[in-house]
This record gives sequence, C-alpha cells and structure tokens, in this order.
Amino acid sequence: MSQDKIINGVNVTQLVNTIELIKEKPTIADFKFRATNKWVGGTHNRARVKDFFGAGEEDNSRAAMTFEIDEPPVLLGENQGANPVEYLLVALSGCLTTSLVAHAAARGIQLRSVESRLEGDLDLHGFLGLSETAEVGYKEIRVSFKIDADLSPEQKQELIEMAQKYSPVFNSIAKPVPVKVGLAQD
Amino acid sequence: MSQDKIINGVNVTQLVNTIELIKEKPTIADFKFRATNKWVGGTHNRARVKDFFGAGEEDNSRAAMTFEIDEPPVLLGENQGANPVEYLLVALSGCLTTSLVAHAAARGIQLRSVESRLEGDLDLHGFLGLSETAEVGYKEIRVSFKIDADLSPEQKQELIEMAQKYSPVFNSIAKPVPVKVGLAQD
Repeated sequence: MSQDKIINGVNVTQLVNTIELIKEKPTIADFKFRATNKWVGGTHNRARVKDFFGAGEEDNSRAAMTFEIDEPPVLLGENQGANPVEYLLVALSGCLTTSLVAHAAARGIQLRSVESRLEGDLDLHGFLGLSETAEVGYKEIRVSFKIDADLSPEQKQELIEMAQKYSPVFNSIAKPVPVKVGLAQD
Repeated sequence: MSQDKIINGVNVTQLVNTIELIKEKPTIADFKFRATNKWVGGTHNRARVKDFFGAGEEDNSRAAMTFEIDEPPVLLGENQGANPVEYLLVALSGCLTTSLVAHAAARGIQLRSVESRLEGDLDLHGFLGLSETAEVGYKEIRVSFKIDADLSPEQKQELIEMAQKYSPVFNSIAKPVPVKVGLAQD
C-alpha cells in the first residue's frame, strides 16, 4: 500500500487495478444501491441506507445511516430535516464533486479545493395538481463550481465537463431513468 | 388553529388555503431550493442545506443541515457517509412518501403506515469511462411500497400512482431536467 499513487486523496493505483479487473470480468462493475423509508407522520419520513451489492458480492459491513426528511412550515412541515428536492441537490453536488476529483486524479491533476453552489427551480403548481402543463419536477438546476488548482480557466472548464460526463447522479437527472413503483407482494 | 382539519399529520386546512392563495397569485408557487458542497478529500465531500426562496420571500430561518458524502472502500472511499447515488434514492423515497401521504390526506384517506424499499442498478463502466454505450446514470430504479390502511389493493395502487404523478423528485429522475453546470464568475 505504501507505494500506491495517491492524488487528491484518491488511490489511483487501486483505481487502475479496479479498471483492469473490470476489463477481465465485466460483471463486477454491476452495482445495486438501496434505501428504505418509513413514514413518521405528516411530511416527516426517515430513510435508511446500509447494504449494497457490488464487485460480485453483498456488502453489509457498513453501519446504518439514517436521514430525516421533512418540509419547512410554509410547505406544511416542521423542519425535522431537509426536504426531498434538497436531498436531490445534495446527491447531485456530491456526485459531480467526486466525479471531478476522481477523474482529475486519474489524469494526474492536483486540486487544492473544490466548492459548488446549486439552485433548482420548482413550480408548486405541479405538486399540487393545479396545472397539467407545469413541470412537476425541477424546471432547471444550476450548478456553479469554484476550483482552486494550477489550471487555466479552459482546463477548469474541461474538468467540469468531465465531471458531468461521468457523474451517475448528473446523468440520472439530466436524462430519463426508468423508475418502476409497485406494491410489495406480501 | 385548533379547528384545522388534520389528516395523516397533514394540515389539510392549510393545504387548501395554500392552493387558494396560489390561484389568486400564481407566482407564490415559484420556489428555489439550494445546496452547497465542499470537497473534503478523496471521495469525501460535505453538502449543506439552509436557505430557500418560496412563497414570495427568502427563508433563512432554518438551522443549517450538513450531509457527509463518501464511498465505501470498494469504491475508493472510507465510509464517511452514504454515496451520491444512495442520496438520490433517499431523495426519491422521501418525495414519493410525502406525495403519497399529502395527496391521500387531501382526499380524506387515513393511513396507518407507509414503508418503502428502493433499489437501483448502476453499471460502473459508465462512471469509469470504460464504455461509450453503458448508461452512466442508474439503468433502472425499483420502488416497492407497503401501505397499511383500510383500502383495497386497487385503492393502494391508485395511491402509488398519485404519488408518482405529483412527486417532484420522481419526475426529476423519470424525466430529463436541464442541469447547467459552470464555473463561478469570481
């Protein structure tokens, strides 16, 4: 481990090894991520993340992580947690950042700091069923990055383009994903 | 307040008042939600949610909420938090649940409990840039609901269809959303 090449805190040696393993056995790239949710009351509910499937096996080694979800009073809640559309921005911010940092590391680009601000426009006519034409989801999301590194503005622009290209959450929002919702069979 | 009609913990009187206010002044339905993110190191970063714009004014009254984002060791992280694609499932679970509970309340339907399980399929070939054809985002997300209420299976099915129709996060994932990513101008 001591000779591993680490850039931006990313173990590039392990990253390259992972890529070689996937080239030998493509199915180890198949991951399944999960969450469960339990309604608490009103607009308050609680999600839990623990196990996942990846690299050919079930991983149940993490401690469970719970997330409180609620709305502010103006949206009938009691501020017991961030609301669902805010969690979506949290997910997007984390994924673009990790994608940017990891792909910079793979190319040997050192970063000193990465910060971002996100804002999304939501028209409540959709959620409330007051319009058949209003978007129910976000109408638009804007993300602004501040990168501290010895790079030109053009090179920073390339980084944020790479971040988008390879970010699973960005691509799950910018492109349509099939979401199948059903009743449990029990 | 004491005569307000409360169903499933949702203040239906306030909900109806909000709808009437929006019919009078449609712009109060325009909300802007926000998050910021700061890279910590490697695949670890931290998001923050606090202020938003809604009902015609800035709301800065909430305490800041922070979210640790990281990957498990198999994905080069150190388990400092759930990963971005897991946060996406958290967001989806919360939004479908709130949408289901609120629209049930608006129709006078009493619920005893609502639970859900979510699973999404991710092929790392996309994130790693090992395939130009693999989906970078989730290939598919499955959601399974368990609802305890005095309802027939058909009525429960109607509820989960309503939950999807009116859920902003569901519609942000199932349909494409324009996401504009740029460098901060400073």
